[in-house]
Amino acid sequence: MKNNIHIIEENESNVRYYCRRFAKEFAKAKMSKMFTADGAEYIDFFSGAGTLNYGHNNEYIVNKIIEYLKNDGIIHALDMYTSAKIDFIHKFQNKILIPRQYDYKMMFCGPSGTNANEAALKIVRKYTGRKNVIAFMGAFHGMTLGSIALTSSSFARRGAGVQLDNTIFIPYYGADIDSLKYLEMILEDDHSGIEKPAAIFLETVQGEGGVNVADYKWIAELYDICKKNQILLVCDEVQTGCGRVGTFFSFEKAGIQPDIVTLSKSISGCGLPMSLLLLKPEIDCLDAGEHNGTFRGNQLAFVGASAAIDYVIENDVWKKVLNNERYIKAYLEQEILSIDSKIQCRGRGMIWGIDFGGFEEKTCNEISKKCFENGVIIETSGRRGSVLKILPPLVINREELTAGLNVIKKTIEDSL
Amino acid sequence: MKNNIHIIEENESNVRYYCRRFAKEFAKAKMSKMFTADGAEYIDFFSGAGTLNYGHNNEYIVNKIIEYLKNDGIIHALDMYTSAKIDFIHKFQNKILIPRQYDYKMMFCGPSGTNANEAALKIVRKYTGRKNVIAFMGAFHGMTLGSIALTSSSFARRGAGVQLDNTIFIPYYGADIDSLKYLEMILEDDHSGIEKPAAIFLETVQGEGGVNVADYKWIAELYDICKKNQILLVCDEVQTGCGRVGTFFSFEKAGIQPDIVTLSKSISGCGLPMSLLLLKPEIDCLDAGEHNGTFRGNQLAFVGASAAIDYVIENDVWKKVLNNERYIKAYLEQEILSIDSKIQCRGRGMIWGIDFGGFEEKTCNEISKKCFENGVIIETSGRRGSVLKILPPLVINREELTAGLNVIKKTIEDSL
Amino acid sequence: MKNNIHIIEENESNVRYYCRRFAKEFAKAKMSKMFTADGAEYIDFFSGAGTLNYGHNNEYIVNKIIEYLKNDGIIHALDMYTSAKIDFIHKFQNKILIPRQYDYKMMFCGPSGTNANEAALKIVRKYTGRKNVIAFMGAFHGMTLGSIALTSSSFARRGAGVQLDNTIFIPYYGADIDSLKYLEMILEDDHSGIEKPAAIFLETVQGEGGVNVADYKWIAELYDICKKNQILLVCDEVQTGCGRVGTFFSFEKAGIQPDIVTLSKSISGCGLPMSLLLLKPEIDCLDAGEHNGTFRGNQLAFVGASAAIDYVIENDVWKKVLNNERYIKAYLEQEILSIDSKIQCRGRGMIWGIDFGGFEEKTCNEISKKCFENGVIIETSGRRGSVLKILPPLVINREELTAGLNVIKKTIEDSL
Amino acid sequence: MKNNIHIIEENESNVRYYCRRFAKEFAKAKMSKMFTADGAEYIDFFSGAGTLNYGHNNEYIVNKIIEYLKNDGIIHALDMYTSAKIDFIHKFQNKILIPRQYDYKMMFCGPSGTNANEAALKIVRKYTGRKNVIAFMGAFHGMTLGSIALTSSSFARRGAGVQLDNTIFIPYYGADIDSLKYLEMILEDDHSGIEKPAAIFLETVQGEGGVNVADYKWIAELYDICKKNQILLVCDEVQTGCGRVGTFFSFEKAGIQPDIVTLSKSISGCGLPMSLLLLKPEIDCLDAGEHNGTFRGNQLAFVGASAAIDYVIENDVWKKVLNNERYIKAYLEQEILSIDSKIQCRGRGMIWGIDFGGFEEKTCNEISKKCFENGVIIETSGRRGSVLKILPPLVINREELTAGLNVIKKTIEDSL
Repeated sequence: MKNNIHIIEENESNVRYYCRRFAKEFAKAKMSKMFTADGAEYIDFFSGAGTLNYGHNNEYIVNKIIEYLKNDGIIHALDMYTSAKIDFIHKFQNKILIPRQYDYKMMFCGPSGTNANEAALKIVRKYTGRKNVIAFMGAFHGMTLGSIALTSSSFARRGAGVQLDNTIFIPYYGADIDSLKYLEMILEDDHSGIEKPAAIFLETVQGEGGVNVADYKWIAELYDICKKNQILLVCDEVQTGCGRVGTFFSFEKAGIQPDIVTLSKSISGCGLPMSLLLLKPEIDCLDAGEHNGTFRGNQLAFVGASAAIDYVIENDVWKKVLNNERYIKAYLEQEILSIDSKIQCRGRGMIWGIDFGGFEEKTCNEISKKCFENGVIIETSGRRGSVLKILPPLVINREELTAGLNVIKKTIEDSL
Repeated sequence: MKNNIHIIEENESNVRYYCRRFAKEFAKAKMSKMFTADGAEYIDFFSGAGTLNYGHNNEYIVNKIIEYLKNDGIIHALDMYTSAKIDFIHKFQNKILIPRQYDYKMMFCGPSGTNANEAALKIVRKYTGRKNVIAFMGAFHGMTLGSIALTSSSFARRGAGVQLDNTIFIPYYGADIDSLKYLEMILEDDHSGIEKPAAIFLETVQGEGGVNVADYKWIAELYDICKKNQILLVCDEVQTGCGRVGTFFSFEKAGIQPDIVTLSKSISGCGLPMSLLLLKPEIDCLDAGEHNGTFRGNQLAFVGASAAIDYVIENDVWKKVLNNERYIKAYLEQEILSIDSKIQCRGRGMIWGIDFGGFEEKTCNEISKKCFENGVIIETSGRRGSVLKILPPLVINREELTAGLNVIKKTIEDSL
Repeated sequence: MKNNIHIIEENESNVRYYCRRFAKEFAKAKMSKMFTADGAEYIDFFSGAGTLNYGHNNEYIVNKIIEYLKNDGIIHALDMYTSAKIDFIHKFQNKILIPRQYDYKMMFCGPSGTNANEAALKIVRKYTGRKNVIAFMGAFHGMTLGSIALTSSSFARRGAGVQLDNTIFIPYYGADIDSLKYLEMILEDDHSGIEKPAAIFLETVQGEGGVNVADYKWIAELYDICKKNQILLVCDEVQTGCGRVGTFFSFEKAGIQPDIVTLSKSISGCGLPMSLLLLKPEIDCLDAGEHNGTFRGNQLAFVGASAAIDYVIENDVWKKVLNNERYIKAYLEQEILSIDSKIQCRGRGMIWGIDFGGFEEKTCNEISKKCFENGVIIETSGRRGSVLKILPPLVINREELTAGLNVIKKTIEDSL
Repeated sequence: MKNNIHIIEENESNVRYYCRRFAKEFAKAKMSKMFTADGAEYIDFFSGAGTLNYGHNNEYIVNKIIEYLKNDGIIHALDMYTSAKIDFIHKFQNKILIPRQYDYKMMFCGPSGTNANEAALKIVRKYTGRKNVIAFMGAFHGMTLGSIALTSSSFARRGAGVQLDNTIFIPYYGADIDSLKYLEMILEDDHSGIEKPAAIFLETVQGEGGVNVADYKWIAELYDICKKNQILLVCDEVQTGCGRVGTFFSFEKAGIQPDIVTLSKSISGCGLPMSLLLLKPEIDCLDAGEHNGTFRGNQLAFVGASAAIDYVIENDVWKKVLNNERYIKAYLEQEILSIDSKIQCRGRGMIWGIDFGGFEEKTCNEISKKCFENGVIIETSGRRGSVLKILPPLVINREELTAGLNVIKKTIEDSL
């Protein structure tokens, strides 16, 4: 079974992407490591783009799934009542929402973040009777027609092939233009030409946009503007949720409760497709079946998601994230920034970016490729792909984390 | 753990749907049977809306998955090269496509039918440079913004909350208006007001639209019109594919090779989220990453899908479907049509509809509910929900099939 | 002042059109005749595309205008109260509407037909709360963005450069598909994919579409379908109104009262820009200023329009039209149809088409050009420009009418 | 003929607007004066919203028109070659464009400013292949569907009744946000979410937006940004052109040559409907007939327009405007600003605004009404209608100008 990559290259559409960057046949994986078919191992600083917060094949979680399968637990049941779903809802309410005093109803959408965002669009438009939605420059909310309209990348947008309407983009935190001042201006002016929006979609940290980190105070002010103007705030927690920044929700420290929260990626605990939309009870306005999808009841994912909640709490994962945050920050400041004064770093929790915007366009891309050659899986993001995105599993141990960072350091030093 | 349904009712969004119709807590399932938490059993004539063609927890398939999990096989890897993916591509090409002389490249989309249809929209628009797409009255292609535009139900469309553009609806096979004549008229007339479409989206049997079955000759003529006018034909095989009508693809007997085929639901063999888009090599025009999605590489689903191919061939499932087709057809003609002359029946393979359009609007809905009380899970579809949709797993045995049909017969007799 | 055409050719945009077909410098005109700068004369079978129903420089009408100007009557006053406007409204109500028992309010739009149709779109959408509008294949309603969306010509639509939404085209009277049956089908089917429209826009005779004449009974049935479904009927009378078919409104003989009527072209009586929208009092829903335009009060046009009403009644113009209708019809049947069996003729009142659809595509265009060389100004219309459109002033005398028809006859004979 | 206003009130649509504010029956007018049917006279500081730059019934111009009519000059001829059109084109090139070294082709659109802007939209979209257009907050470009999309007033936009797409609004000169910096930011960022626009539509002075006056240096910088990014610049000169600011085109002093210029309102010299679009020869991309309109050849307007050019030059009107500019500016600064420190004034040439934004919302509206009672016709504009707009004919004599200003001063003093 050696070197079978050609079977994919010959038969899979040109649209394939990550396999071009990480061009090995992978066969197995465990926590922070991935193993190729011929036995080579890689440290994973990519985590399935944020899907594997608790590591690959986390033993505690996978064992629950195997047990469930062996016992003929239901695998697929649309949105019928099932024991696995009841367990998950019960656990999520009691261990995640209630301790944080968040009052949310739960909606199960098609098993992807983009689907949850599509559902959010339906809700905010129906509830407010408005059509416009505000998104931020640099935002990524998905690749289906509704969510592409909220995604700012010109490449992604062109791919839609049709007009993308009903979205207003405003600058994100940190832009040269004062974003909130601009927002208030267009909301107050009856000659702004911009219809009052139904909602604002927010990522507290923009992953695809280049690891842009919004200040908590700014988030709180944004929330206040929304409240004052009866605009709903939707937090897209697909990548930043599930503990990535050291709290379950990435907005907790801003002291807000968004009207809608969309979760996916790591919510199932083990990389299985699932999404979850939380919404305040008073905006629960869709009729039965008004949004649906065949796989909105991925029971295996529910089993994983329940196990993940237990695992996280028992293992104090959020606390570890905060420790790692301090460690990564210090490492970047001491070891990376010192390499070249044009390098910039930013991040929160365990999502960090090393920004090579000051260098030639190809620089970051080449560093990412060389890191892979050197045993670390790491992707790029941001404008012109100039930001190296550090996104290891939350559960990575200190030794592997350091090893990975050292590879990055050495690769940068060799490349610049 | 008895009567925990209230946990869902209190916490899940009002959008939940099937649980209202089949209001029991289900815990286990095996092939054509589902079991509640307190042990009651139901015959499944619903099959997860066509997702469970090979039954719940098909032992052959599930064992492959358990084995894979135990062995730390990769669960999630976006579109990196993996052994599980290579296996599936190899098997699908060699056992499904090549024997049928179909030359298709394979594209893995987000793990749902709607996502594959969104991808198809991008491809046909990019390849042709046109924006319009033709869909049929009665069509269902999904609930995200791009695919809702191709879905004809006014309820589904209203839910989008925004204008749905770039779609032209034409009558389906069997309408009072000659559909193909109408199609040719609008294509030829430079004053039709209708821009030449990029593609026509076709279901060979409309499931949601009310089990409307297109004649193979009509399908072949439609294909010819597409070829003549350089319009792409997209077959949405999400519900009708994977053997549902007795051939792997539902269009095989029409003698055509559509430009694009979208598959999902039963493709993973066991109810796990997955979708697959097939496209002719010459229209493989998307750039790397131009459509993507976190869960486009659900490795467990690949393992299931590979196992399913072996299972189907070894067990001669398609032949059994054709036998069952004859049996169901005869049963409906003899036992059901005789109940009342206003009843109509139609279908193909193992998807059949009993049409109560001639009765009061609530009739069909009530029959479906009573069937559930009598131990059969069966849903409604079509205009005003007036068609009872028979959709058992393909692998149901004759005894259970007959038992289910007898329940339906008795329920109808009691209801009219 | 000879041969100054080059001044236009060098300085006017390429978009210029009729000057290419009728490439002489015209200086004067009187009733049915136009005169070039060097004294040549032409019979006008074009009438400014229907703007000059009462002839060029109709003496009675023009004298009223000169008198008004000499007296410092107001020329421009937006929608302020003016004596000229009061006179016109009074006369139009008392001499046109009241005798026909039509109860309409009057709205003055920007001075062109397209502007009145844009206003009609605003009204029907606001009144019904719906967005879709139905137009007919072959329709022409104008060239601004709202009205292009209702115009079926693919050339006109492409020119918009953007997506044209919210319009559904259905076949017109006489199509191979039964138009009204199709209309009822899509209105009744909740899976037609077509949102209930706010209105249907109708021309009783399609001028640009190729002189297609709707049967009065069909129009009455269409009206009934509108009433039954609470859909507004808008009659675009821009070309067919003002007596063109022998009644002031072209729909009178159908026994209907449309909800909205748009008038322009000949309404001012002398070729000055003006439009007028009539609407039933109960749908008069726009707020003050919700549609406007600088030239909605062209006072000279009001003076002309008032004079035209007096002129038409005193000179019994509508009766003359009916006489001419019989004469033209007989001429075409006897003199033109006999030339070649592939020729078709149709029309009503004083708008008639000679259809060369059965011949080579260039045929009709060449005949039009040769007619001009032979002293008759006549344009083409319809699919591929294959219909020669006979559109003389209503006030043409029998001698000139015959002379023009004879030129056409001879030209056709020489050309085929 | 006394008190016939009721005829209009009973029969005209509720959409009527200015007649509500200036509720008298007007019968005659001469230069800067309007006269009611019962002989009262008013000073006109409104000028038909900028249509009557050369006064009502300017004797020189109107005499030319009367002469033309008496001589059976052609009134209506679509876009055929006519002597009146040749004269106008010749004069406009030789007396307006060539002296300014502007190389423009001329396009005659439907007879209104909105129609010229609709045509401009077609050109910029066809020429660039892009769809987006940038307009400024506060802009007014018309009330048909294409141009409403460029108009920022929320009231006007709501009236469209449909989605208004393909327009991006950015702040105008003088906003709190640095408009050009913002513009450059969104053009440079491939994650701005904003597609590169085909064109930017500019008013050098926003009339409807509240007499906002752009600095010439800012205009020149905007022009440079357009050039650098291959974006077309369209100057909407409908209200500010034809000498209103003391130069024929309002952008002359900025030292730029816009790619497209749209003119209407005063271009005909006497209030007759006409529009004119100027475009650089290299972007003259529309095919014959791709934009059209029945009244694109209003011959009387051409006669007036030719006469107006002679009149303006012979009477040195532009110089008088500059004198009046100084006079009005001094008057406002000395007599009006001193009334209350919350009053603001701004303007250029002979368009000036007195801004009551610092007062109660009804203030400005009431002052406008009282001015009318006191014999001056003057309208409001801007956000919440808080700007009194001074817009007298350019040819007003000093005595009447002073009399009008004194009325305004006294009315303000009495009102605050």
